[in-house]
Amino acid sequence: MNRILTYDSTLRDGGQCEGVALSLEDKLRIVMRLDEFGIDFIEGGFPASNPKDIAFFEQVRTLPLKHAQVAAFGSTCKKGVAACDDKGLADLLASGAPVVTIVGKTWDAQVTRALQTSLEENLRMIADSVAHLKAHGRRVVFDAEHFFDGYRANPDYALACVRAASAAGADSIDLCETNGGALPHQVEEAVAAVAAAVPGQAWGIHCHNDSGCAVANTLAAVRAGATQVQGTVGGLGERVGNADLLTVIADLELKMDCACVGAENLRQLTGVAQFVFELCNMAVPGHHPYVGASAFAHKGGLHASAIARFPEAYEHAKPEAVGNATRMLVSELAGKASLVAKAASLGIDLASARPADVQAILDDIKQREAAGYSYEVADGSLALLVRRHLGQYAPRFTLESFRVIVDDHEDTGALAKDAMSEATIKIHVGEQRFVATGEGAGPVGALDNALRMAITEFYPEVAGMELVDYKVRILDENVGTDAITRVVITTRDRNGSWGTVGVSENIIEASWNALVDSIEYGLARMGK
Amino acid sequence: MNRILTYDSTLRDGGQCEGVALSLEDKLRIVMRLDEFGIDFIEGGFPASNPKDIAFFEQVRTLPLKHAQVAAFGSTCKKGVAACDDKGLADLLASGAPVVTIVGKTWDAQVTRALQTSLEENLRMIADSVAHLKAHGRRVVFDAEHFFDGYRANPDYALACVRAASAAGADSIDLCETNGGALPHQVEEAVAAVAAAVPGQAWGIHCHNDSGCAVANTLAAVRAGATQVQGTVGGLGERVGNADLLTVIADLELKMDCACVGAENLRQLTGVAQFVFELCNMAVPGHHPYVGASAFAHKGGLHASAIARFPEAYEHAKPEAVGNATRMLVSELAGKASLVAKAASLGIDLASARPADVQAILDDIKQREAAGYSYEVADGSLALLVRRHLGQYAPRFTLESFRVIVDDHEDTGALAKDAMSEATIKIHVGEQRFVATGEGAGPVGALDNALRMAITEFYPEVAGMELVDYKVRILDENVGTDAITRVVITTRDRNGSWGTVGVSENIIEASWNALVDSIEYGLARMGK
Repeated sequence: MNRILTYDSTLRDGGQCEGVALSLEDKLRIVMRLDEFGIDFIEGGFPASNPKDIAFFEQVRTLPLKHAQVAAFGSTCKKGVAACDDKGLADLLASGAPVVTIVGKTWDAQVTRALQTSLEENLRMIADSVAHLKAHGRRVVFDAEHFFDGYRANPDYALACVRAASAAGADSIDLCETNGGALPHQVEEAVAAVAAAVPGQAWGIHCHNDSGCAVANTLAAVRAGATQVQGTVGGLGERVGNADLLTVIADLELKMDCACVGAENLRQLTGVAQFVFELCNMAVPGHHPYVGASAFAHKGGLHASAIARFPEAYEHAKPEAVGNATRMLVSELAGKASLVAKAASLGIDLASARPADVQAILDDIKQREAAGYSYEVADGSLALLVRRHLGQYAPRFTLESFRVIVDDHEDTGALAKDAMSEATIKIHVGEQRFVATGEGAGPVGALDNALRMAITEFYPEVAGMELVDYKVRILDENVGTDAITRVVITTRDRNGSWGTVGVSENIIEASWNALVDSIEYGLARMGK
Repeated sequence: MNRILTYDSTLRDGGQCEGVALSLEDKLRIVMRLDEFGIDFIEGGFPASNPKDIAFFEQVRTLPLKHAQVAAFGSTCKKGVAACDDKGLADLLASGAPVVTIVGKTWDAQVTRALQTSLEENLRMIADSVAHLKAHGRRVVFDAEHFFDGYRANPDYALACVRAASAAGADSIDLCETNGGALPHQVEEAVAAVAAAVPGQAWGIHCHNDSGCAVANTLAAVRAGATQVQGTVGGLGERVGNADLLTVIADLELKMDCACVGAENLRQLTGVAQFVFELCNMAVPGHHPYVGASAFAHKGGLHASAIARFPEAYEHAKPEAVGNATRMLVSELAGKASLVAKAASLGIDLASARPADVQAILDDIKQREAAGYSYEVADGSLALLVRRHLGQYAPRFTLESFRVIVDDHEDTGALAKDAMSEATIKIHVGEQRFVATGEGAGPVGALDNALRMAITEFYPEVAGMELVDYKVRILDENVGTDAITRVVITTRDRNGSWGTVGVSENIIEASWNALVDSIEYGLARMGK
C-alpha cells in the first residue's frame, strides 16, 4: 500500500473562491479540524500579504496539532535579488511555519513574457530560493507553476527548472496544472516522463478543474509516481475550483490501495466537508461525490430491500466508510456512537446515560436538523441540548418578551449610518423580573446590549464574553425574504471560543436564540 | 478528426436528479434547444411509464427537428417471454421513436441474483430483443448495464453479452458505468479490451460521477475507441449525477480533436446550460467547467492587462469558444480597462465617457469596497452606480423613512414562530407621497411587502419580480453584532436574474438598500 501525503490548500487557494471569506478564528478552527482528520500539510496562506495572515501564523503556532504541519506559501526570490536578501523569503521564514512552499515558473514563455527575465535567471531564482530555505531547516515544497503547459511547450526547459529545484534539495516538487485545462492521459504521460528523468525526487500534484478532470488528473499523477496530492476541501477555489481533496482521498483509499488518512479517519470525510462549508457559510452541494446528501441517495424506483440484497450494484463504495449514509438525512450525529463521542468531547458523559435518554436526544437532533438547525459548528448549542435532556441544566434566565424597533430616515452615503435600533427585553432571572432597553447600530447589537444590561448584575462574567463572529444563512432560497434563517454565532472568552445556533423564519428571533445559547453556554462552561 | 456522436439523457437520467421536475412543455422545449445545439440523439424517457411520457412521444414527433433523433428507452424483453410478445418492447416500437435504447444485464451476479434467471436466458433476452427491434427498422442502442463491474467479475460472460447484442445487430453498444465508481484507467482498459474482442462494433459510453471522474471516464472510453458519448446537461442525474455532456463535448472538441457539435455550435454551450437549468428552476452552478459564471473569472491580484498579454497562461480555453466570457471580478477593478469592459457587458458605454467620470466611478467603487460593498455578484447595483455617475439615472422612488418593529414572546419549539414583524415605509414616487405598512414573518419580508405595496400602483411590473436568494455576511467579525453587514439579494423576472448589494452596520438597513436596488435595477432593465 502506497503512502500518499495529503496537502490541503483550502485556506489559500480555497480562499480565492468567490464568496468565501474566512475569519482568523475560522481558519484556526479549520486547521484543528484538518489535523484531527489526519491531513499531512495545511497551507495557511501568504504570511506577509495582510495583517490577518500574519496573525494567523502567529496564532497557529500555539495550536496543539497532533499530526499536521502548517505550510507558508510564497514565491521564489525576485529577479536580480539574492535569496538571502529577498523580503518575501524572509517573511516566509519569519512565519515560523515548518513547511515552506514556493511557486516558481517552469514555462519558458511565462519567464520571458510575464516575469520578463532570462531563462537562466529563472533557474537561478529557483535553485537559490530552495537552497536558502533548506539551509534554514525547513521542509521545502516547490510548486512548479504551469508545469504541464511548460512541458508541452518546451520540455527541456521545464525539466531544467524541476532539476534545479531538485538539485537544491526540494523535499517535494509539486507539478501544478495551473490553468486547469489538461486531461488525465496528458498528466500521466508528463509525470511519468519527469519522474523518469529526475530519479529519486519526490513529486506532488496540484490540479484545477477547468476541464472537469481535476480529480482524475490527480489520480493519474499518482499512478505515474506522484506521492503528494494537493487540493482543497470540496474543491473550493477560483474559477471552477481546485481538485477536491476529499474525493481524491476517498478514491485513493478505497479504489487505488493507497493510504492517506487511513480507513479509520476516512469516516470523518463527510463531517469535514460539512464543517468547512459551514464555516464558509455555504452548504455542501447535495450532489458532491462521497460527501453530498444525495451521494448515496436512491431514487428511480429502487427499494431499500434491493439495495440491501446487492448493495455493490447500487453503491460504488460503502457510505459508512466516508461517514455518509445510504439515506437522505446526513449528519455527523446520525448515529448513537458518534453522538456519545461528540458529547464526550464536550465533557458530557453519555456512555453511561440511559438508552432512552440517548434516543430522545437523537430524535430531538434529527427533528431540529429537519427544521434547519445544524450542529456541525454549534457545539455550545449541542451541549445545552444534551444537558437539558439529561436534566443537568436549568436556564439562567427566561424570556418574557422582546421588542425591537429599527428606525431609518432618508438614505445617505456609501455606508448609511442613519438607522438606529432599540431593543426592550423583559426577562426573569431567578425570582426577579428585569426590563432593560439597549441601543445599537443594528437590531442584534441592540438585543445583545439589552440582554447584557439585564443580567450583568447577576452574572458579571458576561462582560468577559465577546461575540467574535455572526453568520446568517438563508436555508430555503426559493422563498426569498420569508425563508428559514439560520444564525450561527461564535463567542469567545479568555479560555476559548464556542459556537451556537438559532433558527427561525425571523432573522431577529434566530439571532436572539443563538445569542441566548451563547451566553448560557458561556456561563455553563465556567460552572456558573 | 474523429466524429463522436452525442447522446443526451437529460430528459431521462437527468429527471432522476433530486429537485428536477420537468413539465411536458419543458421537455419539448429542451428537445428543440438540444436539436439547435447539434446533439445527435435525445433520449426522451420510458414511453410506457406514465401518461406524460406517452404524450411526450406523441408530441415530439410533430417537432420540426433539424438534426437530432429522439430515442425511447426501455429494457430487454422479460425472462421467459419472446421479444415479439413482450409488452415493453411493443410500447417502445409504438412510441414511433426512430431510436430505441434497451438496457440489459451483463454482470453475471446481477443476472442470477437480481434478475433471478440463468446466464443463458439473459443472453437469449438480449439477442432476441435487439433482433426484434432491428427487424422493425429502428436504430438500436444496447445499454450494457453494470458493464464495468461485470467485466471485472466475469469478463467472459460480460463479453458474451455484448457479443450477443452485436451479433443481433445493435447499432451501438453503450457500456454503462452504472454505479459510478470506476476510474479512468479501468474504463480505458475495459473498453480497449472489448473493442479488440468484438471488432467492427460501434461502442458508446455512459458514466456516473460517484468517484468524481465521470467526464474523465467518458474521455478515456473515447480514447479506447468509443464513438458515442452519453451524458446529461450539467451532469444532472441521481446521486452525484451523470457525466456532464457539455463538459465532455467541450473537452472532445477543444482538446481531443474530435467533432461533436462543431466549433460553430459549440458557442451555444453556455446558453444551452442556462436554458436547461432555467427550465429546471435552478441556477447553473457558478463553478461549473466552461459554462459557470466563474469559469473564466479572474481574481487573486491578476490584472486585466496581464491576461490580455498572455491569455493562455490564465485560460485553458477561449471563453468565446463556449459562449462564455472572461469575467473580471469587480473587487479587482483597480484599473480603468476592466471597469470599461465590465460596464460594456452590462450594456453601458464607458469607453466614450469623460475620463474624469470614469475616475470618479473608480474612486466611488474603491471607497465602497473599503466600506464593505462587493460587486462580484451584484451586477445590478454596479450598473445603477455607474449610471448615476453618468447622469443616466434618476431613482424611481425616494425614501422618507421606515420603521420596523419585531415583537417576540417567550420561546417555544425547535423552530420558533412566535415573532411577528411589521414595517411602515414612507416614500415618494414622483410628486406623490405614499405610506404603506407590510407584515412578514421576518423584518425584511415585511419591508419587501411594504415597498411593493407602495409602488405597485406606479410600477405594476414589480409583481413579476421575485426575490430568489437573500444572503447575509458579517464583514468585520471582531466587532460582533454591531459589525458591518453585507446583504446580497438575487432577484429574477422572466428575462433573467440580477444581484444587488447593501451594506450597513444595521442588517435591516443593509437589506433595505439591496432591496431598493433590486427593484430599481429590475425596472431599469425593462426600460421602465
